[in-house]
Amino acid sequence: MPDPVFDLSCPLPLRHDTIQLAHGGGGRIMRELLEQLMLPAFRNAALNARHDAAVLTLGGARVAFTTDTFVVHPRFFPGGDIGELAVYGTVNDLAMGGATPEFLSCAFILEEGFSLEELRRIVASMRAAADRCGVAIVTGDTKVVDKGNGDGLFINTAGIGLVPAGVDIAPRRVVQGDAVIVSGDLGRHGVAVMSVREGLTFEVPVQSDCAPVHRLAAALLDGGVDVHCLRDPTRGGLASVLNEIATDAQVAIEVVERDIPVNEGVAAACEILGLDPYYVACEGRMVAFVPASQADKALALLRPLPEGHGAATIGQVKEGPVGAVMLRTCLGTLRLLDLLSGEQLPRIC
Amino acid sequence: MPDPVFDLSCPLPLRHDTIQLAHGGGGRIMRELLEQLMLPAFRNAALNARHDAAVLTLGGARVAFTTDTFVVHPRFFPGGDIGELAVYGTVNDLAMGGATPEFLSCAFILEEGFSLEELRRIVASMRAAADRCGVAIVTGDTKVVDKGNGDGLFINTAGIGLVPAGVDIAPRRVVQGDAVIVSGDLGRHGVAVMSVREGLTFEVPVQSDCAPVHRLAAALLDGGVDVHCLRDPTRGGLASVLNEIATDAQVAIEVVERDIPVNEGVAAACEILGLDPYYVACEGRMVAFVPASQADKALALLRPLPEGHGAATIGQVKEGPVGAVMLRTCLGTLRLLDLLSGEQLPRIC
Repeated sequence: MPDPVFDLSCPLPLRHDTIQLAHGGGGRIMRELLEQLMLPAFRNAALNARHDAAVLTLGGARVAFTTDTFVVHPRFFPGGDIGELAVYGTVNDLAMGGATPEFLSCAFILEEGFSLEELRRIVASMRAAADRCGVAIVTGDTKVVDKGNGDGLFINTAGIGLVPAGVDIAPRRVVQGDAVIVSGDLGRHGVAVMSVREGLTFEVPVQSDCAPVHRLAAALLDGGVDVHCLRDPTRGGLASVLNEIATDAQVAIEVVERDIPVNEGVAAACEILGLDPYYVACEGRMVAFVPASQADKALALLRPLPEGHGAATIGQVKEGPVGAVMLRTCLGTLRLLDLLSGEQLPRIC
Repeated sequence: MPDPVFDLSCPLPLRHDTIQLAHGGGGRIMRELLEQLMLPAFRNAALNARHDAAVLTLGGARVAFTTDTFVVHPRFFPGGDIGELAVYGTVNDLAMGGATPEFLSCAFILEEGFSLEELRRIVASMRAAADRCGVAIVTGDTKVVDKGNGDGLFINTAGIGLVPAGVDIAPRRVVQGDAVIVSGDLGRHGVAVMSVREGLTFEVPVQSDCAPVHRLAAALLDGGVDVHCLRDPTRGGLASVLNEIATDAQVAIEVVERDIPVNEGVAAACEILGLDPYYVACEGRMVAFVPASQADKALALLRPLPEGHGAATIGQVKEGPVGAVMLRTCLGTLRLLDLLSGEQLPRIC
């Protein structure tokens, strides 16, 4: 029997006839594509949970499964490269599902004429990144497209991991009163990539935060924190993650500008580039929703780890208005942090 | 401790400095890329087994894991489309590992300007194909690249499935005396795609064999056949599969031209296009290695299924020369079926 909620035999029309860059941007237009085209077609319980990784039962084991493609341009940027990103991105999505990352697949689309030496560097970078995360790349695929029909190299990784018994991390678990925690300062990855693209130089160059966050998730879970939800703020940044969670959990979220860590260089670059740091992608940060009573315990578990030393509580979950994300500014006023409609930063990951 | 076989600190030089179309062709140059660049970098036990799907232990379960990217051009061809191919390709790779396919991921790379109506058709086709195979698409990703840096749409799928206890399907199990069985006539997919590209019309158009083969694998396993190895002859066709297995299992293989099923239309098209049907991709066929004593039983299990009604024993495994694949021609002579060096059919899957 069709699921009455998702059986949209007459789906709402999409706003466009063709794919726009914004369909990959993490904002409202991308969400429409998912809600109106992908989810109605593929609908099933695991997909409908709308989390970074699907959690499945396989032979009695609880297995998390996720996939991500990487098309970042340029392929090398301050603090990382597309190979690292392809490993960390999928490791992080597994970790955000509460899983211990175990195995990755890796699929390349190479454009005719791409440098084998560069491929060798990227593959070496992937192996080093995998070793750092304790995962193995166990299966792969390579396709070549003719010159002019690709852009050097695109990488897809998929990943599987085990979800320990008792762990239940999902947007629906987020409730009024939860504290919102970030693991460090925001927006470095997007700014690092854009600086290279725009040819900007800073006195102290902004490095991407590109890093694995699975140890941060494990620290909370192993430390006994009742983690309600985890998500890594990649495309669309913090603001998009908060909007997704607020909508999917049917709550409101209020965050406090003064408490949100943003590095000085990132803030300056955002001024110049006309970007809002709350919408800029991170690739090594985690947003956690935990009961307010456990927020200090969570910070105490995160801060001793180098990748979590900048952890901070930035706000809390409110009852309503449902789906709204509000920013308490330094002036004391409230500003709506809406989902962006369009595309701030194409090909950032 | 590094594995002495794969720790090539001074790897053999690759023949080229840049990626050639042949690096994706399924032949010798592609194998060099894997052996000299990918495998030494990523090396681990699961990958070194060199099978279509990695078989892993996860939470006590034996899990098969595989990935494939689809860049076929054109996206719609007689008998199928890129969406079906993306589902069947990964379902088939799982089945070739002896697994029951369960869950798929799906990742799109869309080019700015791609038709949303076409995307909707392809997504619907994927859902229908998944339903036909009893698998669910449970997680996904969508990236958009700017116009001119892609080619409409590329699809990656990864898949996981359960490998039943006692099933051990791998190249290393292939031994002298094994019968070589194919599940049907060869080369339809490649010819169907090339006919569209070259604008050829035939009295009876050749349809792609694009189909799932998991029921064929299950029929053999459930029927009690001691299956040594399975592989689907996609890129590079039958000849490439036989060469891979002969090399990895350290055996020779002899197949008999008279017994290899090739459809009349495929044979005629291959004449015109200058192709050898033994090297042309199938997307719904299976090659099985079973003990000679069980070959007739295997055929009796395959032929009642519509997708296996053309099954035939086409040859056997010999002791040596190691790695050689020989064709016994209709004239009674022996011809070497070598790995192709270059690329016969770019972007066939």
